[in-house]
Amino acid sequence: MNIRYAVIGTGALGGYYGGRLAHAGKDVHFLLNSDYQHVREHGLKVDSVNGDFHLGAIQAYDNTRQMPPCDVVLVCLKTNNNAMLRELLPPLLHRGTMVVLVQNGLGIERDLARQFPGLPIAGGLAFICSSRLGPGHIGHFDFGNITFGVYQNGDDALVQQLCADFTQSSIGVELAPDLNLARWKKLVWNIPYNGMTVILGTATDKLMKNPASRQLIWDVMLEVTSAARHCGANLSDDFAVQMMEATDRMTPYAPSMKLDFDARRPMEIAAIYSSPAETALEAGFEMKKVRVLEQQLRFLQSTYTRL
Amino acid sequence: MNIRYAVIGTGALGGYYGGRLAHAGKDVHFLLNSDYQHVREHGLKVDSVNGDFHLGAIQAYDNTRQMPPCDVVLVCLKTNNNAMLRELLPPLLHRGTMVVLVQNGLGIERDLARQFPGLPIAGGLAFICSSRLGPGHIGHFDFGNITFGVYQNGDDALVQQLCADFTQSSIGVELAPDLNLARWKKLVWNIPYNGMTVILGTATDKLMKNPASRQLIWDVMLEVTSAARHCGANLSDDFAVQMMEATDRMTPYAPSMKLDFDARRPMEIAAIYSSPAETALEAGFEMKKVRVLEQQLRFLQSTYTRL
Repeated sequence: MNIRYAVIGTGALGGYYGGRLAHAGKDVHFLLNSDYQHVREHGLKVDSVNGDFHLGAIQAYDNTRQMPPCDVVLVCLKTNNNAMLRELLPPLLHRGTMVVLVQNGLGIERDLARQFPGLPIAGGLAFICSSRLGPGHIGHFDFGNITFGVYQNGDDALVQQLCADFTQSSIGVELAPDLNLARWKKLVWNIPYNGMTVILGTATDKLMKNPASRQLIWDVMLEVTSAARHCGANLSDDFAVQMMEATDRMTPYAPSMKLDFDARRPMEIAAIYSSPAETALEAGFEMKKVRVLEQQLRFLQSTYTRL
Repeated sequence: MNIRYAVIGTGALGGYYGGRLAHAGKDVHFLLNSDYQHVREHGLKVDSVNGDFHLGAIQAYDNTRQMPPCDVVLVCLKTNNNAMLRELLPPLLHRGTMVVLVQNGLGIERDLARQFPGLPIAGGLAFICSSRLGPGHIGHFDFGNITFGVYQNGDDALVQQLCADFTQSSIGVELAPDLNLARWKKLVWNIPYNGMTVILGTATDKLMKNPASRQLIWDVMLEVTSAARHCGANLSDDFAVQMMEATDRMTPYAPSMKLDFDARRPMEIAAIYSSPAETALEAGFEMKKVRVLEQQLRFLQSTYTRL
């Protein structure tokens, strides 16, 4: 089976993963926004710790109406832009199209399923440190694995081929049997570190070194694992221990929300904070500490002035 | 009865209240630290919204061993310096001396009582906006009332005379029948606004204007009133409503902790955050949101570098 891919959002994630697929000879169609003209003329350049590459001629579009129907749509937008999917997706869909949300947070597949009932939907969790360095220019600095998990109506053969394509494109890939569990696992890391690097204006290593912030990270992680268990994700507190140890070994790191904040871009507060807290509350658990971080982040975002 | 006063710490609080007492002809003995030489030579200058005044010759000391025993000792230090009281107080005490802690926070009278069993102790809650403008120079910008409450072994006649002296010195004074309740009341305001102006780098009016930070302030206030009730202070949530409304009417205000942070002085985290949280925990109530603020403040204080 030859999968035809659409990549919605050709930035730090879409540019890297889509670029790797295209570099390996897969049929990939890229939607671009501000970088469209540049990429039409100069192609896509990826500087990767695993080896740089350049795609001279790529199938680039500035709207989805010009794109062919695809078998797999990789949504690599920031979740704040997901309202655009209602218009962006229809031209790309045929009977068997699966939409994969390569995004952070919780509740995003549910929201999409409400707009497109019956649509095959999966989630993609990127464990990667990458960013857009300039027009058509992506930097990949560390990690790079991706975890897929089916949300609804996944076709086994398509999912298997998706995983095979990523493997053939030199991307470490895992298929999670439980997407809900996988999303909560990622939140155990994302919730404390994203918010606290923004609010306290610092990086992961400094948060780990100070006893008070280290304790707060631990307390918040335990609130997330408790919430996860209330929401049907069988996540033990041992996983929080693993996340602490993994972060201790990491090089100092500014999470995506910190990069967004420093550049005065909208932060993914709804997907990473509000949605988990609301989901947990519906399940009878109040994420009191997470709400503090959420409200502080909302205040900070309201202070943005043009840089 | 003529009370002889000692003022321990002649800064924003001690300089103002002690200065008013001396200006009204009371017998006041001031302990000074860095401003000692300046005040010996030039006296104490108070610029007050209620009228400026200057005390040319004041009874100034740079250690308590030279000071006479006093009837009332007004402790106007930052709580972070209370460990010094073990050495500072003994020369000032006679059989009937009452020590009044004109300070923020909770548990400070208990801590002092453990060091000086049986000592008459009271608390003083200053509702004032004042600061040290320079050597021997105090600015008083708004409010100014003080509430006293007896902690242990208060002599009725002495307490009544203390209140009368303050009134005669043009200071609004109230005698609280329940010091524990009075201290928790003040915390309803101090806990949200002190920490959040520091952590979010802003002032009270901006916190009140943004819906997210306004909600957080409200949530934290309710956590404080709940903790208060667990600790025997009969404080209703209506009081939080009053504090919100009062703050809405206030001119934009930087609380003392924000001034301390901006000047890279130690913040009163222990007295205003840790002690209430620990006291509530002993009473069976976990202040989850307050702990977040406490840990964030401790992190921020650890980042101080010499300005």
